[in-house]
Amino acid sequence: MEIKRYKHNAGYSYTLGMALTIELIKYKRESVRTIYVHPDYIVQDKNRTIFDICERAALPCEVNGKIFSRLSMKENTYVIGVFEKYLTDLSREEPHIVLVNPGDSGNLGTILRTGLGFGFRDYAIIRPGVDIYAPKAIRASMGAFFHVRFSYFDSFDEYRTQFSGHEIYSFMLDGEMELREIGEKPIQPYSLIFGNEGTGLPCCFHNYGKSVCIAHNHEIDSLNLAIAFGIAARAFAELKN
Amino acid sequence: MEIKRYKHNAGYSYTLGMALTIELIKYKRESVRTIYVHPDYIVQDKNRTIFDICERAALPCEVNGKIFSRLSMKENTYVIGVFEKYLTDLSREEPHIVLVNPGDSGNLGTILRTGLGFGFRDYAIIRPGVDIYAPKAIRASMGAFFHVRFSYFDSFDEYRTQFSGHEIYSFMLDGEMELREIGEKPIQPYSLIFGNEGTGLPCCFHNYGKSVCIAHNHEIDSLNLAIAFGIAARAFAELKN
Repeated sequence: MEIKRYKHNAGYSYTLGMALTIELIKYKRESVRTIYVHPDYIVQDKNRTIFDICERAALPCEVNGKIFSRLSMKENTYVIGVFEKYLTDLSREEPHIVLVNPGDSGNLGTILRTGLGFGFRDYAIIRPGVDIYAPKAIRASMGAFFHVRFSYFDSFDEYRTQFSGHEIYSFMLDGEMELREIGEKPIQPYSLIFGNEGTGLPCCFHNYGKSVCIAHNHEIDSLNLAIAFGIAARAFAELKN
Repeated sequence: MEIKRYKHNAGYSYTLGMALTIELIKYKRESVRTIYVHPDYIVQDKNRTIFDICERAALPCEVNGKIFSRLSMKENTYVIGVFEKYLTDLSREEPHIVLVNPGDSGNLGTILRTGLGFGFRDYAIIRPGVDIYAPKAIRASMGAFFHVRFSYFDSFDEYRTQFSGHEIYSFMLDGEMELREIGEKPIQPYSLIFGNEGTGLPCCFHNYGKSVCIAHNHEIDSLNLAIAFGIAARAFAELKN
């Protein structure tokens, strides 16, 4: 079967680049279809070539130049890992990150990377929202994609019904409390909710749990979504029990 | 003179889009050359068309479709503001953000936007570094570009010599103290120093002032530069005197 440039409805996605592909093989080996290697691939570490890695993992590996011109827009990509999409279930005990209608794949990947660094492994995405399997999102995640659980929901209420035990913290420009006022780690598992890059969360989110703002002056309209997320994730990771 | 797609050595740059162009006119009117309007520009607010705004500001305004296909890659851009580059001097009293060899225009713009929101108006960039005048940086700043002061330096030592009164906080993965340990606002004006996206700060920065890390787990190699900056800027903005 010919591998085409990623489309949302494809059953597969792919990693662009050596480092990402190694993460894929290490953590989601069972989902790998084929590893593609560019004819110009240069062995940097003799003891750890992509061919050795594939052989040890018993994975098909193919030298193929054409696929790179089809899938990769960057010139310095020499390894591509094609893998089957897989399903993951969110944990019932761990805190969740809920992204309502995220609109940018790069931001989404950055959020996974940042969140993982602060210990957040569970991501709910409320549709419509960008595709977490988009190669751009995987790339921006710097491999964090393969270490997290994620799930899509058609509405926030659908999510809420499934995880009614999670305490809700909605991040809103007009949130009722400032982030610093959250003094203690919630006893229940909790969900941090973030809206779309351009529009934020609709005001109905004032009706769920607590709404939180991150104070900044009036010289800017809002913080960038990934920045706001990073500040919030760090603050919650720092909370004492 | 024909306006071409932005190049680093040009004497001018430009804003893409209505909101950014209004910021330009409002805050750097004296630097504006010409405002260009797309033939398909649709008047949304009758009392505030770009033509009225230009007339009130006594600025030349030209309907010109060709320039849009040359300068703008996005289809929904209907206003472009071309302006002369200008020089700004950093404040001696205010805190500084120092970016050592920043490599991404989008990140740089996001840093300006975030920093302005937390009250930081002074940005030093150590060469080699991306061009703060690149339309992509200006766009990512969401207009913050026109509210900040910035200056380029050939080396960190050149910066240091000019602003020897500023207390140095270098953000490094192996910083000697964690961000939360900085309990009080420094009495002196201070400089927050950040390295390149890929390589961070070279280890010689341990020799200047204090080095600070932002703790995260070992599942990621590092935080994204703009995220680390956002967390640090918020933390310093929150410090009590």
